[in-house]
This record gives sequence, structure tokens and C-alpha cells, in this order.
Amino acid sequence: MEFSSKLIEKAVNEMSQLPGIGKRTALRLVLHLLKQPKEQTRFLSQALLNMREDIKFCESCHNISDTRVCEICANLARNHQTICIVEDVRDVMAIENTGQYKGIYHVLGGKISPIEGVGPSQLNITTLVEKVKSGKVVEIIFALSSTMEGDTTNFYIYKQIADSGIIISTIARGISVGDELEYADEVTLGRSILNRVPFEKTFKNN
Amino acid sequence: MEFSSKLIEKAVNEMSQLPGIGKRTALRLVLHLLKQPKEQTRFLSQALLNMREDIKFCESCHNISDTRVCEICANLARNHQTICIVEDVRDVMAIENTGQYKGIYHVLGGKISPIEGVGPSQLNITTLVEKVKSGKVVEIIFALSSTMEGDTTNFYIYKQIADSGIIISTIARGISVGDELEYADEVTLGRSILNRVPFEKTFKNN
Repeated sequence: MEFSSKLIEKAVNEMSQLPGIGKRTALRLVLHLLKQPKEQTRFLSQALLNMREDIKFCESCHNISDTRVCEICANLARNHQTICIVEDVRDVMAIENTGQYKGIYHVLGGKISPIEGVGPSQLNITTLVEKVKSGKVVEIIFALSSTMEGDTTNFYIYKQIADSGIIISTIARGISVGDELEYADEVTLGRSILNRVPFEKTFKNN
Repeated sequence: MEFSSKLIEKAVNEMSQLPGIGKRTALRLVLHLLKQPKEQTRFLSQALLNMREDIKFCESCHNISDTRVCEICANLARNHQTICIVEDVRDVMAIENTGQYKGIYHVLGGKISPIEGVGPSQLNITTLVEKVKSGKVVEIIFALSSTMEGDTTNFYIYKQIADSGIIISTIARGISVGDELEYADEVTLGRSILNRVPFEKTFKNN
């Protein structure tokens, strides 16, 4: 792609480094910004810069936070004895949006993935094991995605905390609410039968 | 969507103002930036800022440019007697990429569109008419998209320059190279028969 302006070219090149944004999309976005008031671009670049420079990670759960300890960990009304282990910040948001969970989180920052070169040492596992060994934790809930990497990570952590005597659970796998049974995959359907729950539970919770 | 950080929220809000980028995509992009070195965000926001603040529009053709007059208009090797009228900067790039056009351009900056509230006065039409009236122009080529707005804009400009005695042409509409005839729409196919060209022309140009 040939550009009549070096400034445009540079902006497009930087934009197209973002995932899922190719050169054409980047050009469309950049030309959109050109048509808008200068303030919009100023606000955008300032917001990105501030975010990247000033963002902190919670010292306790590694969630993103504006303060040293995130709002969830600092909230004494929450149950600090239950820790939900998630892969990344978006999972915290997703679970928070359900409004069903009152414990705290531990963000691993990824999954063990030999293919992508991510080993246990790059994840926030040590701090989790320390937390468990401190004796203040009653239950750990694995909430990683149900892939080979997720299962590997679950198992790696499980091996390190299995002898601590705490409850180790994992989120339920089953048929999504609203889904047709006949279209569900075999593994999920199989697991949903194996891990069936008392019927009363399904309406008592709501 | 609830965010655990005001900084993230602000960045996501600014990002999601871009066309085609919703809150979820914006969050994905912002979290991607968080995982990359700080330099990437610095370069991105600086490039956007520089682009928006320092970009100029060519005084002659209104193309984007780093200088007062764009490279195409400043190139004396090009034919300054032929002006191709396009809607926006991307069209200039698209035609330049073909390598088939040696004249200069005139970027209107949009199309006349009553629905979107764009009237002739918001487009770069006056400067075009002045250029034509200066007597240095021999041919005008309409290269706007073939929509109702495009046709309206073509006709509006045509009415103002029709009595100047210059050649007024429009890019050929027809079956795309490589397309199957049976899937072409009727209007295009009809026009491609009406505006048929001498067969020798199709191989002499290449």
C-alpha cells in the first residue's frame, strides 16, 4: 500500500500492529480520525498513554487496578477464603457481571502453553501457592477455559496444592442455558450427565 | 460493562468511538497493548497525535499531504490537464495503485447526501470549478462510486462545468475482470453492452 503522506503511513503502521486490524482497517480508522475534531485524537492517544503508563496490577490477585490493591481484594464484604482462578482480566469482568460470585480472584495472566512458549514461571502461580499455604484459604475454584492448555494449567496448580487440604473445585461444564440438546457436543453432554445436580438446586439459587 | 480500572475504562471508551470497534473489541485491543512493551503504546499514540496535528491537505487537490502541495500535484511529469474527481483519499490510493493514471486528482471530501446532511458547500467543489474556469484543464474524469449520492454529485458538478467546453468523462462501468457473466447484476451488464469498446483496445493497452 502506497501512502501520499509519511504521517498517515506511520499511524497506519502502528495501528495495524493491533490484533485483528489489518492495513486497510487501520487506514479506515486513521482517516476517520482525520475527519473528526482534533480533540478526539488527543483524548484517544492520551487515554491509551495514561492507561499504559499508570495502570497497576493488584499486588494480591494480579487483576488490573488503579491502586496497589484492587477494589475486589480491598472489599472486606467479600469472602476472602474463596479464590477463583482465572486466566485473564476479562474473565474477572465476565464473572463479576454475573453477580453470582462473592469471593476473590487470582489472575494467572495466561495458560501453560508449550506451543506458545508460556511456562509455569511466566504465570502468577507462585503467589497463588503461597496464598494457599498461608492457611487462610478454604476453597479454590478453577475457572480456566476448557482447552488442553487450560486443563494442563489446572492440573499443574492442583499438584502443588492438593496436599493442603483445602476444597478444590472447578466451574461446572454442561449444556448452555437456552441451548438445544441435539446440537451439543458429545463431551459436554456426557459431562453434564455425569455431573448432574439435584433438581431443587436449579430453582433454589434463583 | 464494568471495569475494575478507570484508566482502562477511559481507554476503552475512546477506542470504541472508532467505527466498527465495539466495547468488547476495544477492551481486547487495550489489554493487548497492556501485554506489549510500553514503547508500542507510546509509538501508537504519538503517531496518531502527529498525524492529526501535522497533516496537511494539498492546496490544489485536497489530497492528504505532508507538504503544502501534495507529491502528485508537485510532480511535473504528470499530466496537469487531466483531473480525476474522487470522493476521498482512499480512492486516490486505489487509482494510484493501478499505475494506469498519469493525470492529477481532485478530492471532493465526500458526496452530496441530503440524508447525511452533506450539501455541495461542504465539499471541495468551488475550487474545482475555479480550476476548470482557469482554462488549463482539458479533461475531467468522474470517478465517484456508482450510488445515488455519487450520481447526484457527478450531475451537480457537471451542470457547473458543462459549458466550459472541456471533455467530461466518467470511469467505465462494466463486468469486473474475472467475474462470471451470469452472476452480474442487470444494470451493470446492460451498461457494459451499451458502452462496449473496440476489441483491439482491450489488448493494446496491456
